[in-house]
Amino acid sequence: MNDFFPVADDEAVAIARILANDHVADVVEALNHESRETATELLCAVPFERLVEIFDQPELESAPELAEALPRSKASKLLTAMSVDRAADILRELDEPARSELLGALAPPLRATLLSILGYPEGSAASIMTTEFVSVPSDWTVGRTLDYIRKVERTRETVYAIYIVDPQTHLLVRSTGLRRLITGEPDDPILSVAPDRMPVTVTPLTDRENLAQTISKYDLLAVPVVDHGKILGIVTIDDIIDTMIEETTEDVHRFGGMEALDEPYMKMSFLAMIQKRAGWLCALFLSEMLTANAMQSYESELEKAIVLTLFIPLIMSSGGNSGSQATSLVIRALALREIGLGDWWRVALRELPTGLVLGSILGVVGVCRITLWQYFGFYDYGPHWPLIAATVGTALVGIVTFGSLSGSMLPFALKRIGFDPASASAPFVATLVDVTGLVIYFSVALVILRGTLL
Amino acid sequence: MNDFFPVADDEAVAIARILANDHVADVVEALNHESRETATELLCAVPFERLVEIFDQPELESAPELAEALPRSKASKLLTAMSVDRAADILRELDEPARSELLGALAPPLRATLLSILGYPEGSAASIMTTEFVSVPSDWTVGRTLDYIRKVERTRETVYAIYIVDPQTHLLVRSTGLRRLITGEPDDPILSVAPDRMPVTVTPLTDRENLAQTISKYDLLAVPVVDHGKILGIVTIDDIIDTMIEETTEDVHRFGGMEALDEPYMKMSFLAMIQKRAGWLCALFLSEMLTANAMQSYESELEKAIVLTLFIPLIMSSGGNSGSQATSLVIRALALREIGLGDWWRVALRELPTGLVLGSILGVVGVCRITLWQYFGFYDYGPHWPLIAATVGTALVGIVTFGSLSGSMLPFALKRIGFDPASASAPFVATLVDVTGLVIYFSVALVILRGTLL
Repeated sequence: MNDFFPVADDEAVAIARILANDHVADVVEALNHESRETATELLCAVPFERLVEIFDQPELESAPELAEALPRSKASKLLTAMSVDRAADILRELDEPARSELLGALAPPLRATLLSILGYPEGSAASIMTTEFVSVPSDWTVGRTLDYIRKVERTRETVYAIYIVDPQTHLLVRSTGLRRLITGEPDDPILSVAPDRMPVTVTPLTDRENLAQTISKYDLLAVPVVDHGKILGIVTIDDIIDTMIEETTEDVHRFGGMEALDEPYMKMSFLAMIQKRAGWLCALFLSEMLTANAMQSYESELEKAIVLTLFIPLIMSSGGNSGSQATSLVIRALALREIGLGDWWRVALRELPTGLVLGSILGVVGVCRITLWQYFGFYDYGPHWPLIAATVGTALVGIVTFGSLSGSMLPFALKRIGFDPASASAPFVATLVDVTGLVIYFSVALVILRGTLL
Repeated sequence: MNDFFPVADDEAVAIARILANDHVADVVEALNHESRETATELLCAVPFERLVEIFDQPELESAPELAEALPRSKASKLLTAMSVDRAADILRELDEPARSELLGALAPPLRATLLSILGYPEGSAASIMTTEFVSVPSDWTVGRTLDYIRKVERTRETVYAIYIVDPQTHLLVRSTGLRRLITGEPDDPILSVAPDRMPVTVTPLTDRENLAQTISKYDLLAVPVVDHGKILGIVTIDDIIDTMIEETTEDVHRFGGMEALDEPYMKMSFLAMIQKRAGWLCALFLSEMLTANAMQSYESELEKAIVLTLFIPLIMSSGGNSGSQATSLVIRALALREIGLGDWWRVALRELPTGLVLGSILGVVGVCRITLWQYFGFYDYGPHWPLIAATVGTALVGIVTFGSLSGSMLPFALKRIGFDPASASAPFVATLVDVTGLVIYFSVALVILRGTLL
């Protein structure tokens, strides 16, 4: 049922029946597998109500392009009938002149609503809110409210909560749910079935992450977006879930050391993929070039003790690995608000002893490795092998400690200067630690091996 | 309002008032900042209804320990009054004999329900479901259903949907929502206000990830857990959100190259923190030791051309970085079901040209760097510097291509042998690529520099 093929005219009816009967989420999944031409063709054959349902799914890929491909009159009818937040999403991604043309064909009140939503920055609460919520004056009764809901019951977004506003000032005063509403007697005042507490609200500029945290903390199904006490719209939990999935993807991509893709991996064009990856890769490469400079400045030591080079990759990677651990811990703790910007010193006080212990563990393993190889004759590190082992062990303690400390401080530093702490990727930390790691290694070597090898 | 201090007897009343009036989510946040002793003391002073609300919050830390610290009779009253899924969570984490003692004090039907939920594996749909849902026979009317809901309306979990079962077989046939219910006339049959389609369901063993995907795909507020056609319970969207946040944390920690913490970063004991991090760090260190072996086998080349060592860190890190990018892309695409296990060859066919292009870009940058340094006299790479530049450039193409390929294949390989693909951490990929990177570098050098430097 999920695979359609380009259709001949007489098949169109059969396909249309499938489009009309399957669960809309499955229909959307099937459409996403089709070429844009076939999808447009299929959508033209679908009954209008179903078309609205399909476009209301945020999972529909290329929705703006598909809407643009529809006849103009059908497209403006569609935008009018679908939920306001999805209509705004579609318009946001349309290019001019299509966007202005479509907006111009809408009724003035809807156009004004859409323009005001589009005016808010992407990712803000106001940019993903819907304006289709139920609000009633606080002097209504339960019965009158129920009648009103029965009448306006058109779109699924209205289910979440009923917002009660002051009849004069229109300021939000309380909120209640359908469940509590139906337990009241018809003649009871609406306020009698509302909890005696201001509802939790967000501002139009609250960002997606805070929004998700508010909804999850207070176990809400929707949260009202309030400006100067007036309710502008609501953000619903299903939009938040989609948002959370998107954010996780972005964070994983960035932690991998690249720009976040905004399309599925297999659908991304080759060139776009290169663009997203080459930027960071080159930046990291250029920074990592400092390792060549560092190595150059130790060239005379290297010539005298070539044995030191054997452990360079091992030692450098250990610093990077411990840094990557610390960074992932701090990024996540910051994202979950377990710690704030002011807690950097508490984190540093944790990472310092942690790094020392982890470094000592690796140092002991490293010393054992050299001793065993020497003892069993796998390799001859020369007459000064105990000193070389001491150098490697000591350098590991220093580098792992430095890695843990700088890995944990990098997200704070990025946040402090206004960047997203999640930009502190594993490769970023590794690069940061590599140059210093070399300097630590050679400094330790100069102290321990002076007068013998160096 | 969020900071309590250990309380004297006469302050207890004031604190209790705060506990009774603030939003329960804020109360929980405040309690989480208290020591266990203070929290227990405060909880004993709280009215029973409020106590139930507080324990119903999954965000309450150490809930099992706090429940255990309450007087036994109060604890069993609490478990009876709170939502079944949360009660099961608490019992699951209690040690014997407290668990059996508390279970023994409960009414037999509740005990049976809890024992059956506890019998399901952790993370399965059945283990996080609640059994408090509304189901009515399909021969009821709208009016009778509304009356019934008004009567059972006690716990917040019942709000989500009304499940309609066959009056004889008790098999699930339809579901509907409160919103549709109130639009019906009291004498209409309940089936007349239900969509004409089987509701989306999951099985008791569906895992958390699939559960989240089902709820998000079909925009549900709750999904029924169905076994052989019979509804056992429902999983609600607020539990799914908590689950998603937890999973993201685990994934980020693992991608950073460590075991996932199961407690907040600042609450984790020092020893537990070391344990979670040292394992992977040692494993990676031991694998990375192969780089020392690889270097040893090229020692004679290193002695002849010490200039080659200068670029080792640069070249190795580039392979690790491109691998880390590819891994993060593939982990996320697998998690979102954009690709499946069978798509590995399609991914490989994408990563091969991507790696070649990215490697060529870095190769050109590397050659330019060497040429510029030589030209401006920053460093003298010797008479054969064009050959060295060619070696570095060519090796970069090979290593970045190898990094992209192996980074993208690692999650598939892990999934294939039954591990979580998200275990493919950035440090894991870097380690995998490092040894091969060295071999590629020296092989290229042997070909290009034979007869001159080597």
